[in-house]
Amino acid sequence: MSEETSVAARGLTLVFTGNGKGKTTAALGMALRAWGQGMKVLILQFIKGSWKCGELIAAEKLGPNFVIRQMGEGFIRCSNDKGLDGHRAAAQNALEEAKKAMREGAADMVVLDEINCAVHYGLVDVEDVLDIIRSKPPGLHLVLTGRNVANEVVGSADLVTEMREVKHPFAVGIPAQKGIEF
Amino acid sequence: MSEETSVAARGLTLVFTGNGKGKTTAALGMALRAWGQGMKVLILQFIKGSWKCGELIAAEKLGPNFVIRQMGEGFIRCSNDKGLDGHRAAAQNALEEAKKAMREGAADMVVLDEINCAVHYGLVDVEDVLDIIRSKPPGLHLVLTGRNVANEVVGSADLVTEMREVKHPFAVGIPAQKGIEF
Repeated sequence: MSEETSVAARGLTLVFTGNGKGKTTAALGMALRAWGQGMKVLILQFIKGSWKCGELIAAEKLGPNFVIRQMGEGFIRCSNDKGLDGHRAAAQNALEEAKKAMREGAADMVVLDEINCAVHYGLVDVEDVLDIIRSKPPGLHLVLTGRNVANEVVGSADLVTEMREVKHPFAVGIPAQKGIEF
Repeated sequence: MSEETSVAARGLTLVFTGNGKGKTTAALGMALRAWGQGMKVLILQFIKGSWKCGELIAAEKLGPNFVIRQMGEGFIRCSNDKGLDGHRAAAQNALEEAKKAMREGAADMVVLDEINCAVHYGLVDVEDVLDIIRSKPPGLHLVLTGRNVANEVVGSADLVTEMREVKHPFAVGIPAQKGIEF
């Protein structure tokens, strides 16, 4: 047991952004660490919605304290996407779920996966994200992922890491691999 | 099931480096995703050794397909550390464990946590890391974490992400938190 456990818990707001691989993955790792510590974790996916990923199978195995909810309508290819209204409704729905979970104390860690993208694409208003950060219960850890994070969100967060792509296998023609990308 | 599963599996060599938070955490998330896909995961920690972290408790719960072995002698404060010989022996031992696991096909994903640091501090020779990458079985995913990755390792890897610190709570006096840092 390290000495840090004697310090009063303070929930942090963490942001994983940038164009490199490892944002959602780091949020998942953090969720696993928290789950290991006996915390309840809720992951709300704002953009992804159509993949049956390894993390979803894992979450089912981890039980009721590790919940992933896919609220999004799948990948958005470009901002002129015809179906943006559907994406917007889904993202707003995810936002309401996040607020509800925080209000009800349903989790010790809430991950809003790809919410930065949702803001960037205009599916979620940045003010709503700042409201969530401001209204966070003191003990709750809040994790926001996705590229193109808004400056205002960086300003309100405790920790921000930019995942910068140095080298990516898709660039050299290697396809997505099971256990890595999905 | 996505169409990528029809493509022949090719194990990747992935590197998470940089000074920001999220390197080991992303490796953990990747390990969880792989475990969810039914893969066997082996995580060898090269530097850490003294913390009873959330991930260790989680690994115990996940069972025999998710193994974390702490091979290191704890944090190295500076490169003039009196106990560097002990650290070197521990890192060499971890290296042998990695080679053995790869030879015996003991895992589908091997994470060499903080191995980049171990090379940076002279505990492990960069040539030994390049040998491991070169002798990797084709289907195995190899993940190397730690700041100050050697250029030669970047050259041999398929994917490299630099976790860049934009903002960190320790810088503003907030201590390490349960479920986040440990």
